[in-house]
Amino acid sequence: MVGGGQLARMTAAAAVGLGVTFLVLSESDKESAALVTHDVTVGSHRSLSDVSAFAAECDVITFDHEHVPGPILAKLESEGVLVRPGSGALRYTQDKLAMRERLTALGVPCPRFAPVASLADVAAFAGGTWPVVLKAVSGGYDGRGGYDGRGVWVCESTGELEEVLAHGIPLMAEEFVPFQRELAALVARSPSGQGAAYPVVQTVQVDGICREVIAPAPGLSQDTAVEAEAMALKIAAELGVTGLLAVELFETSHGGLLVNELAMRPHNSGHWTIEGARTSQFEQHLRAVLDLPLGSCAPPEGTFTVMANLLGGTDPDVFDRYIHVMAADPAVKVHFYGKEVRVGRKIGHVTIVGGPEDDVAEVRDRARRAASYLRWGTEDGD
Amino acid sequence: MVGGGQLARMTAAAAVGLGVTFLVLSESDKESAALVTHDVTVGSHRSLSDVSAFAAECDVITFDHEHVPGPILAKLESEGVLVRPGSGALRYTQDKLAMRERLTALGVPCPRFAPVASLADVAAFAGGTWPVVLKAVSGGYDGRGGYDGRGVWVCESTGELEEVLAHGIPLMAEEFVPFQRELAALVARSPSGQGAAYPVVQTVQVDGICREVIAPAPGLSQDTAVEAEAMALKIAAELGVTGLLAVELFETSHGGLLVNELAMRPHNSGHWTIEGARTSQFEQHLRAVLDLPLGSCAPPEGTFTVMANLLGGTDPDVFDRYIHVMAADPAVKVHFYGKEVRVGRKIGHVTIVGGPEDDVAEVRDRARRAASYLRWGTEDGD
Repeated sequence: MVGGGQLARMTAAAAVGLGVTFLVLSESDKESAALVTHDVTVGSHRSLSDVSAFAAECDVITFDHEHVPGPILAKLESEGVLVRPGSGALRYTQDKLAMRERLTALGVPCPRFAPVASLADVAAFAGGTWPVVLKAVSGGYDGRGGYDGRGVWVCESTGELEEVLAHGIPLMAEEFVPFQRELAALVARSPSGQGAAYPVVQTVQVDGICREVIAPAPGLSQDTAVEAEAMALKIAAELGVTGLLAVELFETSHGGLLVNELAMRPHNSGHWTIEGARTSQFEQHLRAVLDLPLGSCAPPEGTFTVMANLLGGTDPDVFDRYIHVMAADPAVKVHFYGKEVRVGRKIGHVTIVGGPEDDVAEVRDRARRAASYLRWGTEDGD
Repeated sequence: MVGGGQLARMTAAAAVGLGVTFLVLSESDKESAALVTHDVTVGSHRSLSDVSAFAAECDVITFDHEHVPGPILAKLESEGVLVRPGSGALRYTQDKLAMRERLTALGVPCPRFAPVASLADVAAFAGGTWPVVLKAVSGGYDGRGGYDGRGVWVCESTGELEEVLAHGIPLMAEEFVPFQRELAALVARSPSGQGAAYPVVQTVQVDGICREVIAPAPGLSQDTAVEAEAMALKIAAELGVTGLLAVELFETSHGGLLVNELAMRPHNSGHWTIEGARTSQFEQHLRAVLDLPLGSCAPPEGTFTVMANLLGGTDPDVFDRYIHVMAADPAVKVHFYGKEVRVGRKIGHVTIVGGPEDDVAEVRDRARRAASYLRWGTEDGD
């Protein structure tokens, strides 16, 4: 796996049971996965020679992120390296305009979009409606350009548009979707073409950061769930994805679905599967990229799961608070990523599995309280 | 963790989520845990200098087995090393006669026993009843003496007794218990004295090797379950165990309980907890030895779990068969230990979690078929 973040860390734990040898290419020996994996190579995912040398040790390579430059992927493939997902699929996570164009061509519902290079372009696109969403076309942009790394801006005024345009990077405009809530559909596809779909989940974002996931999405109609799963499986097949595909969705006020983003790797919206599904997304990703038969995505009957992300607070010593959370709620499962605490950084997550007698709102509350206490030392922080 | 076997391997995976740094002292770099753990020290658990040097790197040391000589443990403790469980508790897993004497003094029901050194001693103990069970007093005996390493012999004749006595090792005799079935009670106890009990399970042994575990034990009366859990918690408290304590039990034909063996570490009868309980035994052991609050031992409501051990067969390439088992039953979770295949060796296990609509017998069948296929390439081997 190229990339040493928390996704690689949790994939490493899944590889133990599968009995497959798992190697990580990590930018430093202090990355999340590098701290716990037996076979760690330190190198850059932006260096052809580093990635090539790493790939030479592997039967298959896969990714913790979408930041390996396309030309490196194409070069490896031309040399016969098994790259999963392949460069032909990964480009749709690296180029958001190409993704929108391709999905639209496939008849997949997306927000209205257009490439823009000037205020006039944006004005022509938006026709005086506010807000306007601007996105960096390059999804792989890593935030080193002096602005927030996510590359998504919800602009409320011409002044805000001008600020974003001033970055001088390729941009696209999208209509602002007044969604009812956000959902995510997670599927796996193997090179043999086998597909498997996890139950559709609800994700709760605050300031563009995923804070909570509820699996399955409460109150989702069977029709909409099936529509979302079928859409994700279709995208995976049409784009030739091997491994996991996460499709972030808006559920509109009319119950319709629009695709927001794609990711072709284990995804934050799937962390609940470690405890909540028969096969975790990390194991499933490995099974898919190794072309092993896929595992069951089903939760044990009658169960549901809530995951809350753990963000860093102002006190770096999270272990001080850890013990209180464990004592307060013995059913909470805490996952730490081994990362240094910084305010707002994802440093772990907590999961609670509920049964037929449990109430979703109550379990959400417990998960939120645990995450809040771990962050701030109080149960009602945010 | 001292010892690099599969218990350390699965504990390493549990340490990832807890965010604790996990080090292994392994006899070679090819041991089960050494293949997947980031921090591996190669050394002997029988060498004071190796164990001391390893302990100097750790805040707490614990064990994958009970073979570290008592004098080494005592020396470490005298130097202030946190040894959990401590030598005072571990001696009861290393000296079966001391264990029997101590449990009997505590009023815990055990099979009748006596130390024996000669045929005359055995005859005096057994009074002409057959079979007679002989056991090596030293439970830590590692099988290098030219006989089967378990150190338990069920003797049917004077000739068989003579063979065992000829080993010239300290022995004890025990009455043969015509049990109805075997159970196991698994509890955790922290240095602060917190205790937690997993549901009592049924274990199925063939030729002295655990083959299947059903959790919870089907049809066990609530009274017997509570009696077994209370007995295990009492033993853990009285012996000063820190970490896990597994109590192997005989359920007699009258529904009574007798203690067979003790182990103070993660135990084969608890592998089901990885998928089947809210807190796996491996995480629980770490929480206990680190004096963190213990996690919930409960399975998600309405679920039960079957685990079947995977023994080596005659074909070393288990991965050839792996793919068929995954394809046949997507709900089977396979765990490999990274061990070379040898006939009869435990090389992994499979787990299936059942729900309220599932039948225990049917789930046992599926687990057995998966284990058989992985071993022999046929679903009805043994």
